[in-house]
Amino acid sequence: MTAEIVSVGTEILLGQIVDTNAQLIGQMLPQFGITHRHRQTVGDNLDRLVDALRLALSRSDIVFTIGGLGPTQDDLTRDGIAEALGDPLIHDPALEAHLRELFVHRPQFWVGSQLRQASRPTCATPIDNPNGTAPGLICDKDGKVVIAMPGPKGEFGPMLQGPVRDYLAHKSMGGAIASRLIRICGIGEAAVEDIIRHLIDGSNPTVAPYAKIGEVHLRVTAFGDTGGEAERMLVPVVEEIRGTFGEAVYAEGEATLEETVLQLLRDRTASLAVAESCTGGGLAYRLTSVPGSSDVFLGGVVSYANTVKEGLLGVDPAVLSSHGAVSAECAEAMAVGVAERLGADYGVGITGIAGPSGGTEDKPVGTVFLGTYGPTGARSERLLFRNSRQGVRERSIQQALIALRNRLLES
Amino acid sequence: MTAEIVSVGTEILLGQIVDTNAQLIGQMLPQFGITHRHRQTVGDNLDRLVDALRLALSRSDIVFTIGGLGPTQDDLTRDGIAEALGDPLIHDPALEAHLRELFVHRPQFWVGSQLRQASRPTCATPIDNPNGTAPGLICDKDGKVVIAMPGPKGEFGPMLQGPVRDYLAHKSMGGAIASRLIRICGIGEAAVEDIIRHLIDGSNPTVAPYAKIGEVHLRVTAFGDTGGEAERMLVPVVEEIRGTFGEAVYAEGEATLEETVLQLLRDRTASLAVAESCTGGGLAYRLTSVPGSSDVFLGGVVSYANTVKEGLLGVDPAVLSSHGAVSAECAEAMAVGVAERLGADYGVGITGIAGPSGGTEDKPVGTVFLGTYGPTGARSERLLFRNSRQGVRERSIQQALIALRNRLLES
Repeated sequence: MTAEIVSVGTEILLGQIVDTNAQLIGQMLPQFGITHRHRQTVGDNLDRLVDALRLALSRSDIVFTIGGLGPTQDDLTRDGIAEALGDPLIHDPALEAHLRELFVHRPQFWVGSQLRQASRPTCATPIDNPNGTAPGLICDKDGKVVIAMPGPKGEFGPMLQGPVRDYLAHKSMGGAIASRLIRICGIGEAAVEDIIRHLIDGSNPTVAPYAKIGEVHLRVTAFGDTGGEAERMLVPVVEEIRGTFGEAVYAEGEATLEETVLQLLRDRTASLAVAESCTGGGLAYRLTSVPGSSDVFLGGVVSYANTVKEGLLGVDPAVLSSHGAVSAECAEAMAVGVAERLGADYGVGITGIAGPSGGTEDKPVGTVFLGTYGPTGARSERLLFRNSRQGVRERSIQQALIALRNRLLES
Repeated sequence: MTAEIVSVGTEILLGQIVDTNAQLIGQMLPQFGITHRHRQTVGDNLDRLVDALRLALSRSDIVFTIGGLGPTQDDLTRDGIAEALGDPLIHDPALEAHLRELFVHRPQFWVGSQLRQASRPTCATPIDNPNGTAPGLICDKDGKVVIAMPGPKGEFGPMLQGPVRDYLAHKSMGGAIASRLIRICGIGEAAVEDIIRHLIDGSNPTVAPYAKIGEVHLRVTAFGDTGGEAERMLVPVVEEIRGTFGEAVYAEGEATLEETVLQLLRDRTASLAVAESCTGGGLAYRLTSVPGSSDVFLGGVVSYANTVKEGLLGVDPAVLSSHGAVSAECAEAMAVGVAERLGADYGVGITGIAGPSGGTEDKPVGTVFLGTYGPTGARSERLLFRNSRQGVRERSIQQALIALRNRLLES
């Protein structure tokens, strides 16, 4: 089965937005064994849209359209699909009733053009859009399918990941799919792929790795005749991955590494404070991106100047003069100092040379010392990254979260 | 004149990368009055690439290709262009000599397939690529032009903004262009557009606004017979914008707002420390993203818990009990406290409710107090943002930089 995307919108051609919606479809199709060979983008122009759709229908089984479903005169996707499929638009009273209901409590926004969103090609089945006014459409005619989705990300994403995903599973496999996301930290992508090569090479369930900085996510997807069967097929593969990677699996589903660390602290009724030099507050910023982090995260010190390391963190000047600010001793003293000064159970200290300059032969750019402190005392590790300033900083933050998680798992 | 983009790469169709290169071309074309109506994306497959190029050449004057110029068997763009244009590939000895020179100091990376990058359609003029091995190509045949650029961002960007931009200026206008980027902070996009509507509606020079969080960038572009003439044409428009927006213009060219603030501190041999609550270290992280920021940025305190506000920043417990942690008084006390404790000339204090919960009737989610301290004392402002948690945090950081810049400009 083949699929093709037609993105609609002059704002994409003008580069005002970047087409991440098409990217999401592209990521999903391989999971269903659907081949994706072409993508087209056209502006808000009916003739060119119809041409693009006809070309797509001539060579692909499923055509996705993105955008152009709103109420304005520029929203031409419904008209374009109707013309390309040779299937006239009809007014759908059920869609109109639903639309009017959406405006009951904000009648000032109702204008007659909203009714455009209640029309659809005769062959179309509407897709409910709980996040906006324009429904999606699945148009099935003469062995070809056009799936139309709205462009705004908050409407597009849930529709794709929900009803459209289910439709594709059924359409492509005649059944249902189930999937699980397994999040692994502290092991590189190449190593993960080597270790579970036999699973990645499998066809059902499939296992697809996605690499992020210092993490690998594995998406395990199974197809079955029913949702229940697909779920059961997942179990042995998920179990094998869990068994293989053990504690390196930090979460399943949507929890991030920082959320996991905060939850481990909460489980232990323990608190955290962080001292950062080269990462300049980035670890604290990442931790506090999580709502409710104030339960366990007390705060931090950005000790850029040595006087701050001494004054606010109580780092012994002798440590700085004999070992330097970029040293294991300083990282540990920062971790201990910030925990003590802020009254936290756990502390982190990060000091290093993010670059682009400032390196020495002994401590080249990218050298980072990462200290942690907890109930069993202080320790540190030396890291070396070969990345840009921003890359060194992001990787240091990631490693700090991993080290902190490891300490918390020990206790 | 019309143009069309053909992006080449299976990794785009699979959604492994998002096509920001095409976005950059899309942003540039209107500056030259070039109409852009179609974009296509194909995988690394010769037949489909040739079909896409033929379709593009049938309806557009200029066709851009992105990617597929490397040395591997998957890099098929040269072959595709040659076939679509009916213009055979030839081996270019000058390109080979240049390539071999690139590998003189790393002979271990030289493999014979590198030589693929020394072939080109007969009609092609190579474009120098100082950031990689594959040259770009301008193929001009039978009144149509194909411009091929490599896919890696670090190679694509400079080639587009340099030689390709110059080529387009000459091709579209028979002359040369000059452009200037003017960066404005503290005025919303709609207001900026209203104020200089007559300039935005102008045709030469053109003025194009780009909105970012808390900033608007204006790209002024002029076409002239020569580069010098284009530069001269820029002057009155740039002068008018400078005069209209005055101090709201924080930089011209590539300097960011954080770089501007750090430079203002450096000019005054003054130092800075920041105290952050709801922004959780994000202001410090942004400031320290700039290499050399340690000249003037001493550090900061992330005072998430009230005990940290009292202990590390010396905020009077009476302030917290009578006004609350989210108050003008607390923001000012944080700014003063962090400056005093770290020995800095300037201080910032940010405290607020980033959400999603924690708001009250008096202080709803999105309420942020921003304190600054400097040689003339402490002051504060109250802000209200209607955004997500992350949005409130980013906007608070931006406003803190703007407030800090305003204070520095006073002194």
